[in-house]
Amino acid sequence: MVPLTDAPRQPRGRDPRQDRSRATRQRLLEAAVACLAELGWGGSTVSVVAERAGVSRGAAQHHFPTREDLFTAAVEHVAAERSAALRALPPRGAPSAGTADLVPGGGAGPVRADATAAVVRGIVDLYTGPLFRAALQLWVAAANEEQLRPRVAALEARVGREAHRMTVALLGADESVPGVRETVQGFLDMARGLGLATLLTDDSARRDRVVQQWSHLLTAALAHTR
Amino acid sequence: MVPLTDAPRQPRGRDPRQDRSRATRQRLLEAAVACLAELGWGGSTVSVVAERAGVSRGAAQHHFPTREDLFTAAVEHVAAERSAALRALPPRGAPSAGTADLVPGGGAGPVRADATAAVVRGIVDLYTGPLFRAALQLWVAAANEEQLRPRVAALEARVGREAHRMTVALLGADESVPGVRETVQGFLDMARGLGLATLLTDDSARRDRVVQQWSHLLTAALAHTR
Repeated sequence: MVPLTDAPRQPRGRDPRQDRSRATRQRLLEAAVACLAELGWGGSTVSVVAERAGVSRGAAQHHFPTREDLFTAAVEHVAAERSAALRALPPRGAPSAGTADLVPGGGAGPVRADATAAVVRGIVDLYTGPLFRAALQLWVAAANEEQLRPRVAALEARVGREAHRMTVALLGADESVPGVRETVQGFLDMARGLGLATLLTDDSARRDRVVQQWSHLLTAALAHTR
Repeated sequence: MVPLTDAPRQPRGRDPRQDRSRATRQRLLEAAVACLAELGWGGSTVSVVAERAGVSRGAAQHHFPTREDLFTAAVEHVAAERSAALRALPPRGAPSAGTADLVPGGGAGPVRADATAAVVRGIVDLYTGPLFRAALQLWVAAANEEQLRPRVAALEARVGREAHRMTVALLGADESVPGVRETVQGFLDMARGLGLATLLTDDSARRDRVVQQWSHLLTAALAHTR
C-alpha cells in the first residue's frame, strides 16, 4: 500500500516502476548497513551489497554511482532510523521541581528517576545495536580515506546534533541553565563509549550496572541545575 | 648507557647485539602504532611498518612472524605507554570529608574540585591522542577479523582493568561504597566516547566544556557516595 497524502514533500504516485525503484533503493541501503556492521569497510563493496540485496550490480550502480555514495547514503539511512528509534522512546516528561540526591533512591522521586532511567537505557541501546556498529565502521574508515572523511564528518555532525536535540527533549532538560548542555553531551559521549565497549565482547552485564548508576547521577544533575 | 641493576626481572648485559635487537623491536612497535593511527588496519602491513622503522622485512619478521603478532604487540606497547602516562598524572590525593554540590563552585572545596578536574583532563587526554587512535583502529578491525578478535578482546580487557584501577587510585575513590565502581566505569566510557568524537574533526573546544562540567559532577558524585 502506498499512502497518497502523508508525504507532502515527496508526492508519491502509484507508478509501479517508482515503487520498485524505491524498494530496490531501500534494500540496497539496508544491505549496505548490514555489510558494514558484519564485514567492516574493507569487506564492504558495491558488489557484495548488491548480491546481498538480490539486485544486479548495474541496478545498484544506477542508484549509487560510487562506493562512497552507497555507504554515505547508508549512514544517512542509519541516522534516520536512529532518529526514528529515538522519537519512539517514551518521553521523560516535565520534571517536577525539588531536590534530588546522588545516592540511589535518595531524594529523587521514584517516578522521575524511573523515567530518566528509561530514557537513558533507550538511548544507550541505540548506541549498542547494529546501526551504531555500522556507523562506527564507516567513521573509523573515514579517518584514513580522504574521499570519505568530509562526507562522514558532516554526517556525524548532523547525527550528533539530532541525537542531542532529541535527548534534551526526552529528558525534559532546560538548556538555558548553565551546565545542562554539557551534562547531556557528556552522557551521549558515554553512550558512544559503551557502544565501543560492546564491539568485541558482550558487555551487557557491566553496561546495565553503569546505566543504572548514571541514571541516578543524571537525575540528580538535571534536578540541581534546573 | 645500559643500566646494570634497575631491571631485575630481565637482566641486561652489555651485549651490543642484544641492545640493537631491543632497539629494533622498539622502533618496529612505535612504527606499527603510528601506521595504525595514520593508515588504519587496511593500510598497515609488516612491509609498511618495516620501511617506516628503517628495518629490513626479514628483520621485522624475525621479531614478529605474522602481521597479527606485530600489531597485537604494538597494542601491548600502546597499553604500557598509556599506563605509564596514567601513572605520571598528579594524584588527586585523599579527598576531605564534607558535602559537595552539583552546581559548579557550589559546595565542593576548590582544591579538591581542581584536583579532580586535573585527573579527569589527564585521563581524557589519554583517550584523545595517537595511542588511542591506533588502539581504536585495531579494535574496530578485530570486529571483522577472526584471527585478531580473541587477542584484541583479551588485550582490551587487560587495558580496561588497568585504566580502571589507576583512575580509582588517582581519584582517591572508595570502591567499597555502592555505586562508586560504576561511576568510575561510566566516566571511562565517556572518555572513550570523547576519543571517538575527535577522530574526524577537532572536537577540543566542545570537549573542554564537557570535561569541565563532568569534573564538577564527578567531584560531587564521589563526595556523596563516600
